[in-house]
Amino acid sequence: MSETHSVTENTGSAPARDTAAGSGAVLHLADLHSSLADPMMDTMNFLNEVVMTYPEAISFAPGRPYEGFFEIEQIFTDLRRFLDHLSARGRSAAEVRSTLFQYGPSAGIIRDLIAESLRADEGIDVPPESIVVTVGCQEAMFLTLRALLSGPGDVLLVPSPCYVGITGAARLLDARVSVVGERDDGLSCADLEAAILAERVRGRRPRAVYVIPDYSNPSGVTMSLSARRELLDLADRLDVLLIEDSPYRLVSPGIQLPTLKSLDRRRRVIHLGSYAKSLFPGARVGYAIADQPVLKAGRAAGLLADELAKIKSMITVNTPALTQAVVAGALLSCDGRLSELSSEPSAHYGGTMKSVLQGLERAFPSQSRAERGVSWNAPSGGFFLTLRVPFRADNAALGRSARDFGVIWTPMSYFHPEGGGEHGIRLSTSYLRASEVDQGLERLARFVDAEVAAVRSHA
Amino acid sequence: MSETHSVTENTGSAPARDTAAGSGAVLHLADLHSSLADPMMDTMNFLNEVVMTYPEAISFAPGRPYEGFFEIEQIFTDLRRFLDHLSARGRSAAEVRSTLFQYGPSAGIIRDLIAESLRADEGIDVPPESIVVTVGCQEAMFLTLRALLSGPGDVLLVPSPCYVGITGAARLLDARVSVVGERDDGLSCADLEAAILAERVRGRRPRAVYVIPDYSNPSGVTMSLSARRELLDLADRLDVLLIEDSPYRLVSPGIQLPTLKSLDRRRRVIHLGSYAKSLFPGARVGYAIADQPVLKAGRAAGLLADELAKIKSMITVNTPALTQAVVAGALLSCDGRLSELSSEPSAHYGGTMKSVLQGLERAFPSQSRAERGVSWNAPSGGFFLTLRVPFRADNAALGRSARDFGVIWTPMSYFHPEGGGEHGIRLSTSYLRASEVDQGLERLARFVDAEVAAVRSHA
Repeated sequence: MSETHSVTENTGSAPARDTAAGSGAVLHLADLHSSLADPMMDTMNFLNEVVMTYPEAISFAPGRPYEGFFEIEQIFTDLRRFLDHLSARGRSAAEVRSTLFQYGPSAGIIRDLIAESLRADEGIDVPPESIVVTVGCQEAMFLTLRALLSGPGDVLLVPSPCYVGITGAARLLDARVSVVGERDDGLSCADLEAAILAERVRGRRPRAVYVIPDYSNPSGVTMSLSARRELLDLADRLDVLLIEDSPYRLVSPGIQLPTLKSLDRRRRVIHLGSYAKSLFPGARVGYAIADQPVLKAGRAAGLLADELAKIKSMITVNTPALTQAVVAGALLSCDGRLSELSSEPSAHYGGTMKSVLQGLERAFPSQSRAERGVSWNAPSGGFFLTLRVPFRADNAALGRSARDFGVIWTPMSYFHPEGGGEHGIRLSTSYLRASEVDQGLERLARFVDAEVAAVRSHA
Repeated sequence: MSETHSVTENTGSAPARDTAAGSGAVLHLADLHSSLADPMMDTMNFLNEVVMTYPEAISFAPGRPYEGFFEIEQIFTDLRRFLDHLSARGRSAAEVRSTLFQYGPSAGIIRDLIAESLRADEGIDVPPESIVVTVGCQEAMFLTLRALLSGPGDVLLVPSPCYVGITGAARLLDARVSVVGERDDGLSCADLEAAILAERVRGRRPRAVYVIPDYSNPSGVTMSLSARRELLDLADRLDVLLIEDSPYRLVSPGIQLPTLKSLDRRRRVIHLGSYAKSLFPGARVGYAIADQPVLKAGRAAGLLADELAKIKSMITVNTPALTQAVVAGALLSCDGRLSELSSEPSAHYGGTMKSVLQGLERAFPSQSRAERGVSWNAPSGGFFLTLRVPFRADNAALGRSARDFGVIWTPMSYFHPEGGGEHGIRLSTSYLRASEVDQGLERLARFVDAEVAAVRSHA
């Protein structure tokens, strides 16, 4: 085979990649899908470049889990545990082999274990048939938006600031996004209702609201229980769906508020799940709970989950059995109680958040805080908090921060799809060790002081 | 945590899933994305239902690999081999762990090994930077179409019949597809040129042509070397790209013709790769080679692969490190020469194809073949062949075949996006054992005889 090719490969004067750009196909960004020319893409690239240019800088940017809890042998153990589980459930050796090696059902092979875990951990009681296992929560977002946003009049409502994964997915689908400014205590139902009604006046169809009720990315804000109930009532009254994303709950300390889905009595909630934080991101296993009945020409035609699985069959066919197996093995190891399995990480992340908050108190003592015009919120869990500063926390400021002070953070403006957040900074608390936190916050304080001084000298 | 939830879970009168459809959110298929109401979806469901209703029937429908070559321990061995490889290349234990557990680069972590394998196996010489590792070849299709089809005037050209994965992906993107009837010896460049020019006359922009040059799914046809060269010239002359998909080459016996990509001197080809047949489908690892330079405002801005990776970051973030690691371990085990690793499967599939062709000769002896109006093509490899029959091989006929004769096949009409193929049957040769093949073909011959007789009695 390679013989044929080595002959044909050498007949040209030079391989294609060595020829000048003008002598073959050249594409123009403007001719590719418009999402690729979105300024947001460049903005994100800037952050990546800053991180690469200043490798010694302490970074409060990445929302990655801490790596101290990862053990390679655990993967082998979890995989074997799931295979043993299949055998114990009466599957023949050939069936077990087929499960791991062949194409599988688009909706996934561990839906029963996920459903059990949701009952044990979250009081979410849904049938396995309402679950679709996805390649990370990101694919669950993409499938959900593709199903719900069917035409140019359809609108997705998102808080501002908002997780870029959902707005990015909407962008790929040329879907319309309408933003609702988030308040200090989270999304306000009154604001949301006004936004929904305004979209209707414009002749559009608001389909769903995306929300991270617990320790939101990027702001760190958690919705109160009463706000959750109000949001569910509003969704029912105005006939919209809620897309609930909550990756940080199970790695946050203490008792959590109920998810929207566990409070959902009228199937208003599509719950998106992630194992990226409770197990590990590299697994790329997430899921959607979509228990809404779908009618076809007035007759029952399955659940929304079935429709998501159909879409998935044209995107990734099915989530790799291997990664589902490793996640299943971990779920089996704790009888589905991920909250128990992740008690140590929860305590760790809670501790890191606390040490960042304490570090901020030290770095910006309360007597000088008002004078400096600096404030922050104080999440009790999750990976992020919001720092407010009296200067423009833009890419230029980020560049100065990295170059002159050795500290990196994320401009909150990255997360506002229609502008805003110019004076906000997202600090991630998940990835750093305690020693780095203290040093990083000292550097941050010096950077902030320099910026405040610069603003005043201009004023 | 579960305490809180068990309280809230029990406050409602009944869990949402037990309430009647009318008492909560109910969705209407007509309100969801139009791809979900595509008649093709129901058609495919019909085949699945037939398979489930008649489990004893012998099925020539599934294009799955044969399972006899799969060994579970191989996965563990391959995974360890890749981890050892990383260590041997100087990665620390922490770095190896991070590679497996953390988020990774969207373009993948085994691009260098894939590039080496492509040089060894296929004479395709591209830099690792031009490769994006995907969740199966299906995601590579989706990324490529999303990048290239940016507006309502953009057109993808496909042969008819055509693999449903590509037309399904286009459907999800509301992208326009234009079909070119495939001839007995494959896609004709003259037909393609006429179709491209006709689209231009309509004011549209033909962007790319999808083609499976080797042992096409569904027809089994292979393009000649001269047709490949002609196709590359045509693409260059008319300024379109070729999307080459070739999953069956490495599991087909004998010397293969060169891929379009190995003949490509002007970067006209985006090559989509799959390990589903050469390794195993459950890995869900594929890739795209997209070495086309992209200009932004006239200046070099990387390769098309970079743009595909950006899109991927909003669909699956990255291909699971675990599945990439297993594929990498397999590539390392044979110095990238998958053609050697899969020499046994190649011989097997070649043998099965031969036995189906010999079985057809016996089932439809040449003296009666013309009289019966039955014919077929004779691929030398791949998973599929086309059987032509003098009656409508539609779902009703498939139902009779399964119920009355215990044999299942795929109507070729499923693969014609704009109609056609009513007298065609796709026979898959990959999955069955020799004993099943003979019995299945006997049943098929009896079914065909009954249908021919029925047509004649009506005539």
